[in-house]
Amino acid sequence: MKNGIIITFEGPDGAGKTTVLEKVLPVLQEKGYDIVTTREPGGVEIAERIRDVILDVKHVAMDSKTELLLYMAARRQHYVEKVLPALEAGKVVLIDRFIDSSVAYQGAGRGLDKDIIAKLNEFSTDGREPDLTLYFDVESEIGLARIAKNADREVNRLDLEKLDMHKRVRQGYLALAQTEERIVTIDASRDLDQVVAEATQVILEHLS
Amino acid sequence: MKNGIIITFEGPDGAGKTTVLEKVLPVLQEKGYDIVTTREPGGVEIAERIRDVILDVKHVAMDSKTELLLYMAARRQHYVEKVLPALEAGKVVLIDRFIDSSVAYQGAGRGLDKDIIAKLNEFSTDGREPDLTLYFDVESEIGLARIAKNADREVNRLDLEKLDMHKRVRQGYLALAQTEERIVTIDASRDLDQVVAEATQVILEHLS
Repeated sequence: MKNGIIITFEGPDGAGKTTVLEKVLPVLQEKGYDIVTTREPGGVEIAERIRDVILDVKHVAMDSKTELLLYMAARRQHYVEKVLPALEAGKVVLIDRFIDSSVAYQGAGRGLDKDIIAKLNEFSTDGREPDLTLYFDVESEIGLARIAKNADREVNRLDLEKLDMHKRVRQGYLALAQTEERIVTIDASRDLDQVVAEATQVILEHLS
Repeated sequence: MKNGIIITFEGPDGAGKTTVLEKVLPVLQEKGYDIVTTREPGGVEIAERIRDVILDVKHVAMDSKTELLLYMAARRQHYVEKVLPALEAGKVVLIDRFIDSSVAYQGAGRGLDKDIIAKLNEFSTDGREPDLTLYFDVESEIGLARIAKNADREVNRLDLEKLDMHKRVRQGYLALAQTEERIVTIDASRDLDQVVAEATQVILEHLS
């Protein structure tokens, strides 16, 4: 079994991480790296079905513990069916949101117990953590303003959450970035080109 | 807040627990008890959606950890939306399968770690255990033969499991019954009338 590499893209909504990931990809491929990009649930049917349940706007009665367990179920299936085979093939796997999102959103955001979240993250990935995590930091007001401008995207249940929630999520990420060495914080309030340049540089340094 | 009572019906498939539950119900009602009967997911929409994902015959790629997390998500939602309000109203809640099913099926059956199952059971029910559990014990060969005869019921993904799995599940229940005082084992290989009579007696003794 070869050992691939996991690089995760994390941050609050509107930080631009998905756009950055798309722009970093061709640069890495040009350098010859064998890349798989994915996001949870990432085209794995069972996980997509779970995601539908999580995001359904009708599901206002969803308890936050239920939500956490569903995210973990989707994570597990995506990990087994998509991430693990790519790692075993020695690829570099770029994941748009992974274990840290649960700590930030369900832990700091919803106030669920961090120990159980850590245990579930470990359970769902067999303890495999990312090798490198880019945390795209942006103030909540800026992030939310960017989301509001993005007309291509349908509003889902989670968008209905308040500014307070987004602020707690950011604090959760900032706290995590202070304790986890694998996390590199990138100031995502700057122009996209600058953010992409820094992200690319950080990744290339890690890979070389 | 009043304190209701949880009585769970557990056992391997084909033990007859669902039929017994239906027959015990009118007897308890006649005695004046305010009863709610339910099963996970029990008519809670979010949990039913989760159940559909679990039982879909197309989902042969489902990992056993995914399955566990989905059962726990459905349990949490069913608990919050249906069990808890009934308890708060002081009712006697009869549940067809609850936390012990996860220990028997996902723990003993699938070989998942019992500690994480115990933690997840606690997480999903806020630590609320049943007050009384009836475990309907039947040898796997008898249980499976009964299922095969039951033509009213569609075959689902879990029915495709082998006899070995059913035997491990039974061993899981038997081990649990030895350690949990709340569990009363009932020999379910006998005639239905005898099983119903004993189940009714055990419940009435507990309630009085």
